[in-house]
Amino acid sequence: MSTDLTPMLAPEGVVVIGASRQSGKLGAAMARSLATFPGARALVNARRPEPDEGVYASVAEAAAHTDGRLDLAVLCVPAAGCAQALAEAAAAGCRAALVCAGGFGEAGPEGEQYAEALRRVAQETGIRLLGPNTSGFFAPHLGLTASFVPAAGQLPAGDIAVVAASGGVNHALSFDLVAAGNGISVGVGIGAGLDVTAADVLEHLAGDGRTTAVALHLETVPDGPRLVEAVRLVASVKPVVALVVGRSDVGDFARSHTGALATSWRTTRAALRQAGAVVVDDERETVDALTALSRVRLRPHADPGLAIVTAQAGPGLLLADRAGSDGVRMPELAETTQRTLSELLPPLTYQRNPVDTGRPAETFGRVLAATAADPAVDLLAVYALTEPDSVDLASAAQDAGLGADSPAVVVVGGLPEDVAEQRARLHKAGIPALTGPASAANAVRALVTHARQRTVRAVGPQQETAAAVPSGLLDEDAAKTFLASLGIRTPDRVACDTRADAHYALRLLDGPVAVKVLDAAILHKTEIGGVHLGVRTPDELDAALDAIGPGHRYLVEAMAPAGVDLVLGVRRDPVFGPVVLAGLGGTAAEALADVAIRLAPLSAAEAAGMPDDLAARALLDGWRGGPVLDRAEFGRVVSALAASLAASPGTAEIEINPLRLTADGLIALDAVIVHTADRT
Amino acid sequence: MSTDLTPMLAPEGVVVIGASRQSGKLGAAMARSLATFPGARALVNARRPEPDEGVYASVAEAAAHTDGRLDLAVLCVPAAGCAQALAEAAAAGCRAALVCAGGFGEAGPEGEQYAEALRRVAQETGIRLLGPNTSGFFAPHLGLTASFVPAAGQLPAGDIAVVAASGGVNHALSFDLVAAGNGISVGVGIGAGLDVTAADVLEHLAGDGRTTAVALHLETVPDGPRLVEAVRLVASVKPVVALVVGRSDVGDFARSHTGALATSWRTTRAALRQAGAVVVDDERETVDALTALSRVRLRPHADPGLAIVTAQAGPGLLLADRAGSDGVRMPELAETTQRTLSELLPPLTYQRNPVDTGRPAETFGRVLAATAADPAVDLLAVYALTEPDSVDLASAAQDAGLGADSPAVVVVGGLPEDVAEQRARLHKAGIPALTGPASAANAVRALVTHARQRTVRAVGPQQETAAAVPSGLLDEDAAKTFLASLGIRTPDRVACDTRADAHYALRLLDGPVAVKVLDAAILHKTEIGGVHLGVRTPDELDAALDAIGPGHRYLVEAMAPAGVDLVLGVRRDPVFGPVVLAGLGGTAAEALADVAIRLAPLSAAEAAGMPDDLAARALLDGWRGGPVLDRAEFGRVVSALAASLAASPGTAEIEINPLRLTADGLIALDAVIVHTADRT
Repeated sequence: MSTDLTPMLAPEGVVVIGASRQSGKLGAAMARSLATFPGARALVNARRPEPDEGVYASVAEAAAHTDGRLDLAVLCVPAAGCAQALAEAAAAGCRAALVCAGGFGEAGPEGEQYAEALRRVAQETGIRLLGPNTSGFFAPHLGLTASFVPAAGQLPAGDIAVVAASGGVNHALSFDLVAAGNGISVGVGIGAGLDVTAADVLEHLAGDGRTTAVALHLETVPDGPRLVEAVRLVASVKPVVALVVGRSDVGDFARSHTGALATSWRTTRAALRQAGAVVVDDERETVDALTALSRVRLRPHADPGLAIVTAQAGPGLLLADRAGSDGVRMPELAETTQRTLSELLPPLTYQRNPVDTGRPAETFGRVLAATAADPAVDLLAVYALTEPDSVDLASAAQDAGLGADSPAVVVVGGLPEDVAEQRARLHKAGIPALTGPASAANAVRALVTHARQRTVRAVGPQQETAAAVPSGLLDEDAAKTFLASLGIRTPDRVACDTRADAHYALRLLDGPVAVKVLDAAILHKTEIGGVHLGVRTPDELDAALDAIGPGHRYLVEAMAPAGVDLVLGVRRDPVFGPVVLAGLGGTAAEALADVAIRLAPLSAAEAAGMPDDLAARALLDGWRGGPVLDRAEFGRVVSALAASLAASPGTAEIEINPLRLTADGLIALDAVIVHTADRT
Repeated sequence: MSTDLTPMLAPEGVVVIGASRQSGKLGAAMARSLATFPGARALVNARRPEPDEGVYASVAEAAAHTDGRLDLAVLCVPAAGCAQALAEAAAAGCRAALVCAGGFGEAGPEGEQYAEALRRVAQETGIRLLGPNTSGFFAPHLGLTASFVPAAGQLPAGDIAVVAASGGVNHALSFDLVAAGNGISVGVGIGAGLDVTAADVLEHLAGDGRTTAVALHLETVPDGPRLVEAVRLVASVKPVVALVVGRSDVGDFARSHTGALATSWRTTRAALRQAGAVVVDDERETVDALTALSRVRLRPHADPGLAIVTAQAGPGLLLADRAGSDGVRMPELAETTQRTLSELLPPLTYQRNPVDTGRPAETFGRVLAATAADPAVDLLAVYALTEPDSVDLASAAQDAGLGADSPAVVVVGGLPEDVAEQRARLHKAGIPALTGPASAANAVRALVTHARQRTVRAVGPQQETAAAVPSGLLDEDAAKTFLASLGIRTPDRVACDTRADAHYALRLLDGPVAVKVLDAAILHKTEIGGVHLGVRTPDELDAALDAIGPGHRYLVEAMAPAGVDLVLGVRRDPVFGPVVLAGLGGTAAEALADVAIRLAPLSAAEAAGMPDDLAARALLDGWRGGPVLDRAEFGRVVSALAASLAASPGTAEIEINPLRLTADGLIALDAVIVHTADRT
């Protein structure tokens, strides 16, 4: 099987098998869509061959008449006939095929047989297969529309690629991107993904010089690590903006369309983010992000500074408000910048950031240039309503040198035709034009996210030396001893075989202690009365031991100081493999599913960013005079734990709950280690 | 002062004072914008009068030449000259004026003097004044563009009104609404709001037959109760969609533009919602909501059912996913409906909801009609890419009777020109057309929210009989006794003057007790060691009393069973007056500001909905086998508490923290009542 998708996405010739003249039929729509393709072209209709008009009785005959240049076969035959048609196409020299029809895997046992037959032909012949169950793909710069939506043939060529799980979304996103003033390099709907998956197309796009940015839409993920690798590959050279379905329980319908979701929406998003994709929430944000990222990028920066220049205070305030709630930093401008601005603007305008110019005057371009040049400014956002009597926004933005070397997003408000005219000129100059404060805020968020993510990647994976988890059942003491070996702090403690040992431990530890039942077989100690906190006196200790009852070992442990409880776990995701999950303790955080997820192993630097994913992160930053989490320490703990899971094939899960943040740093108060064998 | 804004928004004649020929000047832009106004029209330029061309030396002269029909004066003179010009306009018979210029309140003491002078003239003469610091307003159906953005003159007339705090946002929103295929009835930018406020315009719009829905944009709220009344008035007859600035700390710039924000963003949104407005998050959602609500509305319904019919599974899934995460219910279709659909659709399509038609066939209209007619369906959302060979979507939607009597939103995907054509036809038929899954989801959310809110209002305010808070300092015992008088459950307890009393109480209460210091002057009992829980024995009681120390009274109280802790408070907001706040206990909920807010007083039925505003509401619905909150009981508690604050002018705040949800219902475990006098 060839990994090169060029014969599919940039073929020399195309043959439609099952072409039809009957309007409304798939074979007719396909023939029409492909009619404009300037390369070699042939139609096959076994029943009505008309060789004079390029309709042949077989693909072999068609190939013979086109010097074998037919790389791509588009199959418009029913599911039952696809495997044979594919075999014939492969035999005739086609190296790629598209199957749009449904009636395969989603259609019960018979359909599954057809799918299996297709898969077998692909494997045996090495022909690459897109589909089934997709509306196809298009490559406008080649005049190639292998889609049964003929309007796709009118999509302008450009530099954004679309890779969508669904053919419908491939088209919808492409149309939306075009409506926002962009062009398409290639748009692919994966469909059932019997052979070619999103990962394959991404790998192809990494080396595609026409494509400067990629939209990725995902429903299920058949192969997590492969997808992550492909995204990482592309994201290292061009931005990938990813939209993942499945925030809510989309139930039956999703299963009917996409198959079972083996992993979670959150995990998939976390994996994509970690691989370098900019993960977005809906298709509008996808379009806004790509409108910006296909034209400008910020240099890698942990916290880029945004400046806003607005000709109308109200819309500028909407943008500043959204950027603020997105956590985008808006630095105050330098004094020198403010001095320059004060010379360019009327006295009553606000000039610190946002810069409110009032009605734009001929100085507008210089205001933009001065603000963009401020040393604290990494990105400029500009808002203005088009006003014929005032300045020409597109010219001002160009005069200011905005674009690739001075990243900016520009919003033009006004009548649709005025906006379209300005937008076209801005885009021609390489300056992304957006349609309002919300879309500009989406673009800003995407650019800032992209800059931040590359800082983390720039640090590079510094995998900790991995200590493998000891085999066998581990009780709390053994689990903590293992954690301590990873450099994770645990409380002073004594594992006790007898009551006398426990009394000795009480004296030894000097101060209130926790007394717990010590038994690897008991996972929920608290629920069975196996945990007693704040034990100070021998009498209290006896009472606690009585409550635990005879026939157990005990753990007597120094009490930790008060603090903020976290939960930290590493486990194996069925799709993505080892993952780390971190959240705050307590039911509210749990009910809100406020959790940060990363694929393991990961560097301490990567892991250090996890707490900032949490909605309730304020609790970790000195909430009400409490302790502040040292991100580097947290990163080391996570990285060590993640590496140890990766190094321990027999371990299913390690959970530290709680991992307490105290004034003295992090300390693991309880830990459970589950081996894969224990699960069954 | 007249409350009638007709002379301003629908004048017989308009005079521009300070009209200019000098392009770029405000007076020139205004004269040009108003040139198309078909009513009486005059320009005043004291320096260059040309009576033959309609330019007069004074407004008096202008009025004399136009039979006194000049209702509206548009002042294009500097701030220093505005008061005199306004006085002259009023003297000449003008009943309304627009001041666009800045340089008033935001411009230091001198500007404040100009503002004060303007205010005085308005009060003395009764002339109504819009501005200053606004780009004006427009009423397309009158050909009236009192805006210095001339493009506003090309906005098509329609039935959506815009009332914006900012002139820029008024224009931006109006342009956006038009870009989405709508028309404008009137668009007003309030600006500084020296005289005419958003509430005034809303009151006018309540009786404006042309306007079917209103966009409201707010920055500051000068008069909370008046705004709430005005929104309630409009929302009772037509939908109001509200966008509030201030989610993030927009800081200095906001203050420079809008003045200090005396209340919170959350409170303002809660107040608007309670008054019947559909509150949205950004300007795109504003446009999507109005595109739908200006055309269709659902009947009042606590939980309307959404059905989706989609021609492409992928985009339908995006819509279903978003609707699901918005909490919109998608009922399974009735068997009879499914039977009908199975006759209309190919066998392999999904037909339960969403209905996935596959490529639309000529049965598409009947599929829409059958789905919309399902008894469980209150709203239909339709997605399809335009495909020339398949069905005509607009015709199918009309054939299915979608529109006002069968509420639906339709998404048309495709090339911009195809989409625009379909959209125009759908809108003509009264069917809202949206641009993609995200915009359709916004429209669905708005329609559903509007339907839900009207159910709550339909119940009507059933204000509880208000028990006033006793005066004087109230300790915890007295506060709880007061709560008990409102019908709120509190623990059995004994207020003790002596240690002997406390020992008696321990025997009396039979079981573990809480022992607390009882002193109205101590607000933070726990912090000073004044709270001891789970006291069982006389020895433990003595230890607790020792810890509290001598010279205090004690409260000995039965321990409540475990449960989920809530926080419930009523207090006085500086802008909106009495408000209720409810949230979950614990720092995580607090750090996330997960709080539900309502204006007080309110009915038990209204209050019953508050818990469902909380992100962590799952904790109240039997989380891990825990208790389920009885919404009606919660509503009664809130309503009683809110009524008592409203009936107690001397009380600043009542807080129950925690209010514990137990298997036996709600119980107030601690309470603090603060009188206004105690605050100073």
